[in-house]
Amino acid sequence: MATIRDVARLADVSVATVSNVLNSADRVSPELSARVRAAMEKLSYTPHAGARSLRKRSSGLIGLVVGDITNPFFSDLFEAVEDAAAACGYLVLLCNSNERSEREEAHLRMLRTQRIDGLILAPTGAVSMNRASLLAQLEVPVVLVDRAMEGLGYDAVVLDNRCAGFEATQHLIACGHRRIGLVNGPEVFRTAAERLAGYREALLAAGLSFDPALVRDAGFRKQPAEQAMAELMALAEPPSAVFATNNLMTIGVVKALADRGLSCPQDVSVIGIDDLPWADAVSPRLSAIAQPVRAMGEAALELLIRRLAGTLNGPGTTTVMAPRLVIRRSCGAPASGKPAHVD
Amino acid sequence: MATIRDVARLADVSVATVSNVLNSADRVSPELSARVRAAMEKLSYTPHAGARSLRKRSSGLIGLVVGDITNPFFSDLFEAVEDAAAACGYLVLLCNSNERSEREEAHLRMLRTQRIDGLILAPTGAVSMNRASLLAQLEVPVVLVDRAMEGLGYDAVVLDNRCAGFEATQHLIACGHRRIGLVNGPEVFRTAAERLAGYREALLAAGLSFDPALVRDAGFRKQPAEQAMAELMALAEPPSAVFATNNLMTIGVVKALADRGLSCPQDVSVIGIDDLPWADAVSPRLSAIAQPVRAMGEAALELLIRRLAGTLNGPGTTTVMAPRLVIRRSCGAPASGKPAHVD
Repeated sequence: MATIRDVARLADVSVATVSNVLNSADRVSPELSARVRAAMEKLSYTPHAGARSLRKRSSGLIGLVVGDITNPFFSDLFEAVEDAAAACGYLVLLCNSNERSEREEAHLRMLRTQRIDGLILAPTGAVSMNRASLLAQLEVPVVLVDRAMEGLGYDAVVLDNRCAGFEATQHLIACGHRRIGLVNGPEVFRTAAERLAGYREALLAAGLSFDPALVRDAGFRKQPAEQAMAELMALAEPPSAVFATNNLMTIGVVKALADRGLSCPQDVSVIGIDDLPWADAVSPRLSAIAQPVRAMGEAALELLIRRLAGTLNGPGTTTVMAPRLVIRRSCGAPASGKPAHVD
Repeated sequence: MATIRDVARLADVSVATVSNVLNSADRVSPELSARVRAAMEKLSYTPHAGARSLRKRSSGLIGLVVGDITNPFFSDLFEAVEDAAAACGYLVLLCNSNERSEREEAHLRMLRTQRIDGLILAPTGAVSMNRASLLAQLEVPVVLVDRAMEGLGYDAVVLDNRCAGFEATQHLIACGHRRIGLVNGPEVFRTAAERLAGYREALLAAGLSFDPALVRDAGFRKQPAEQAMAELMALAEPPSAVFATNNLMTIGVVKALADRGLSCPQDVSVIGIDDLPWADAVSPRLSAIAQPVRAMGEAALELLIRRLAGTLNGPGTTTVMAPRLVIRRSCGAPASGKPAHVD
């Protein structure tokens, strides 16, 4: 049976566009709409048919638990999941754990009483004693997104975080940098641990030594990243370039530089993970490792739908998505003399 | 009976901080936590007591329907509502209408089957034939936020949008501008209509004439705002300053200027509505009309809790919150010669 993804591929549009056509959104142009409808016809695609018809006593609800909804990565992920779910006749309940395991657990209990049909979860990095049993008690398919967890057998959709860390660092090395700061999240997060691993690997590949003094945990938040950047710039040998492993921390790093009257990239180069709507509107135009966040959300939803429909069975799979280096203007050659040092 | 707001006032902290103490979040410092607990004791404050004990067959769920979760205004609003709700023992279900009335209606139907205890709604601007009856069928208290609707008798918490439009425009006039572009949302949104009214009022107060050619509807989105800004700059007499009425459109306006090689504020001044985490980190450091978004979320939740507890009765009230002008560096005097005109 043709999936929404097959239709998108044949019509050469995104799954979201197919979804918009199905929901008769008026933001789709007539040309595009016609192309999508032609593809549906050709593939005998029936929306809603797969999953929903096979379910009994379905609530039509899918739960999505994210770590921090004020992080644009997660709000974009939600939008992608919601669009794809709507195309299959599902509504999405969004819960925000705020990176706290007790709130995540409360949400999982609540979602159980709401009898959701399936769950997509970005587990918080905090240790949770009860998560595994709460997930089992849901008795519905679970797909992990952004952050995998070993040993529970769930499907997962993640970024190739090691590769993201490697490519960002390699880009800075290619610009001529030798002392590269890393403003990272806590290593209890798989994403942070793997981005650090990629950073170390790129240093190693270039014959550069790893200096733990250049690595800071800024909790994936803006404010601590500002502080971390201030500390890095106060080092006897400050870095000439910095890699921030998420978008909120990139803002903190850029702000710390601006507050010290330092220019980017003239004084310090900066690269971040996550591409953002304003990255190409402001100065410095930020180079970044873009995550395929829409594709990640759509893939997670599709795995869930296939589990619900019974067309995917057996042990969980992990889908690893490739990051993409977007080069703009925030990375340049190191300053000719000693790196600028302003306290 | 003391409310969480009383505790916050006495301890001189935000409602969110009291909430964090109640939820034993480890991000509250011991000093702050002690101060909050002392205030609770002094006021004999009992968390959870008010609303929940009075309810029968409560689901413990509050619904929140927003217009566009990828707009930081709404993700910040959600965070504020969720923190305040957690302090009262409620969980929040977030639904995203994506500014489409059919999706809003589907969410309202779903929330009814989930037997929520109350609803906070930022109604989409689109005409909805069924909204009033769907809201009535929920049979729970409803509080409107961000966007009021006349005639339904619900409590509402809104920004003083006319004042926001007036202050932004007045600031540009005070900088010396005479031709001021307005990149606005659709006037079916009360917020957009009132911001336009404030803009016109400020022009009138300064003895400047209103030129409809300087006003564009960019749908509260980034991409259309880029296009609108391009059109404004292509006018025979382009504006020397532009006021964008939400944060996404501000990005589009700034991008359109950068793409034309124009500097802000040297060539064109820009002011927006909504203050954002990156506004003081990048160049230009954006001047803005800040919305008290946390206070708006907390006030909406408190109204809902008081309706649930029966301590607020009678016809709906409208709480109007004041905007705040934040002056940074994106507004300056008009260029000395003719305004720059690059096509």
